[in-house]
Amino acid sequence: MKTKETPCLVIVGSIGIDTIETPREKQIEILGGSVSYACAAASFFTKTGMVGIVGNDFPAEYRALWEQMGIDLAGLQTEEGKTFRWSGVYEENMDNRRTLLTELNVFEHFMPELPDSYRSAPYLFLGNIAPALQLHVLEQMTEPKFILIDTMDLWINIAREKLIEVIGKCNMLTLNESEARLLTNTHSLMEAAKLLLSWGPQFVLIKKGASGSMLFSRDNLFLLHAFPLADFKDPTGAGDTFAGGLMGALAESNNTDEPAIRRAMLYGSVTAAFGVEEFSLARLARLDRAQIDARAEQLKSMCTIS
Amino acid sequence: MKTKETPCLVIVGSIGIDTIETPREKQIEILGGSVSYACAAASFFTKTGMVGIVGNDFPAEYRALWEQMGIDLAGLQTEEGKTFRWSGVYEENMDNRRTLLTELNVFEHFMPELPDSYRSAPYLFLGNIAPALQLHVLEQMTEPKFILIDTMDLWINIAREKLIEVIGKCNMLTLNESEARLLTNTHSLMEAAKLLLSWGPQFVLIKKGASGSMLFSRDNLFLLHAFPLADFKDPTGAGDTFAGGLMGALAESNNTDEPAIRRAMLYGSVTAAFGVEEFSLARLARLDRAQIDARAEQLKSMCTIS
Repeated sequence: MKTKETPCLVIVGSIGIDTIETPREKQIEILGGSVSYACAAASFFTKTGMVGIVGNDFPAEYRALWEQMGIDLAGLQTEEGKTFRWSGVYEENMDNRRTLLTELNVFEHFMPELPDSYRSAPYLFLGNIAPALQLHVLEQMTEPKFILIDTMDLWINIAREKLIEVIGKCNMLTLNESEARLLTNTHSLMEAAKLLLSWGPQFVLIKKGASGSMLFSRDNLFLLHAFPLADFKDPTGAGDTFAGGLMGALAESNNTDEPAIRRAMLYGSVTAAFGVEEFSLARLARLDRAQIDARAEQLKSMCTIS
Repeated sequence: MKTKETPCLVIVGSIGIDTIETPREKQIEILGGSVSYACAAASFFTKTGMVGIVGNDFPAEYRALWEQMGIDLAGLQTEEGKTFRWSGVYEENMDNRRTLLTELNVFEHFMPELPDSYRSAPYLFLGNIAPALQLHVLEQMTEPKFILIDTMDLWINIAREKLIEVIGKCNMLTLNESEARLLTNTHSLMEAAKLLLSWGPQFVLIKKGASGSMLFSRDNLFLLHAFPLADFKDPTGAGDTFAGGLMGALAESNNTDEPAIRRAMLYGSVTAAFGVEEFSLARLARLDRAQIDARAEQLKSMCTIS
């Protein structure tokens, strides 16, 4: 069911059918992809429009799940062919994962075209796809207020110049520690962040997985812990869930100053902590806002020095 | 110069002459040891008495440095023989270090006897020595108000039962992530902390190096980031500096409830962050309280969500 209503947040990224093996469990052909995790997380906070591509083999139940979460699918393309497939295995400590298989399929020729209803959305999250496609999406937006961009080592290695060009047009860049070091060729995260800020964005958000995240701006640094979990099942998509929840909460607050971003990070972080408790979107699908709010209060109190 | 005044905090631990090599620099025969770092850090906050042993080869300048920092040396034994020697090398990323040499020397027969002036001190930090010696120190105290115990993998492996006995008599246990897992045979830090609390202490403080620290109690969890540094020279003794600063600040506050411990951790953390900026006690020797307070305020604001 498509809608003409303008979403408050537009997210572009990959949609995959994943096969994931952890030391304790293997799940086959489950719903994954950066835009799937990010839109699911954002949907708790704001009206979110998805931009992505699937093949005509894409299970109707996965589409129904997104619709049930209130995600606007007007920007979802369905093409002849197979949906992107990804398969990976986590090592014993869950810290490292190896990719076993990547089949681009319809994703190989993805050209993201935004429906008219999306173009005036104020918030935009350019999830992890080729920098040229991120730029193409950005250029279709008429009045973006705040743009977050994510990336990965692949693009840093093969499309560095284009990536830096797009980063310069965004308000905030998110990447993990090793990507920050790779992109800047700098070991110190403090030095890396300073260089990244010099390329244009007002904020650089460095993700450190279970060790939390760091928000750098010209004058400030904010340090946030991850919500501590006794156990979790699958960390796949945690970074996308974090970023999606963050952008959803930011859009909901309709405020983009640093205190607002700190609060939005808190929401993104706890949403991600729910997400990893189960595979795919299983935990997010039965999560409600009150649970998120309660965990956000808990995390805040765990970080408070009186 | 010995004093009859009762220190507010007594600390026992090792005193070593260290030779340390990092990827960029090597320093030979410098002042080290857990009680040296811990007393130096505590000295910014409270009157601190040292319990340790050196040989008659111990350089007068090192003793003079401790005195200059106001550390009470009534509990320092000087014996015939050589001072404990330790030598280690840090790998490229500074995350791992290898021990090249350990010469116990006079430390091998260390039997810590407390001067009368120390026995009624309210705060006690049992630094990393054999659990039987930690117990021997503890038993000489007449009215300890708050006891912190540290340990290491060696004692977990060779003196586990005695260690658990001493832990049961302390208010707080500090150890690093891998030691917590080793001692409890549990991978999850949350589960490990729960088990450690069941052995008696009201607080378990898990040190995570540059990733910060976690304070567990029966009902609460507090998460503290390390003060972020663009660069540092030598992480040796950081955990002892952290714990010493923490106990010093706690003694100064004369309060042992959880909010007081959270604040004391903040002070310990920033003191440790100064310490690693140079080798040995070089940075701490020219540090002043105003610098510590300023950095504590900075770190607090870096962790604040409004």
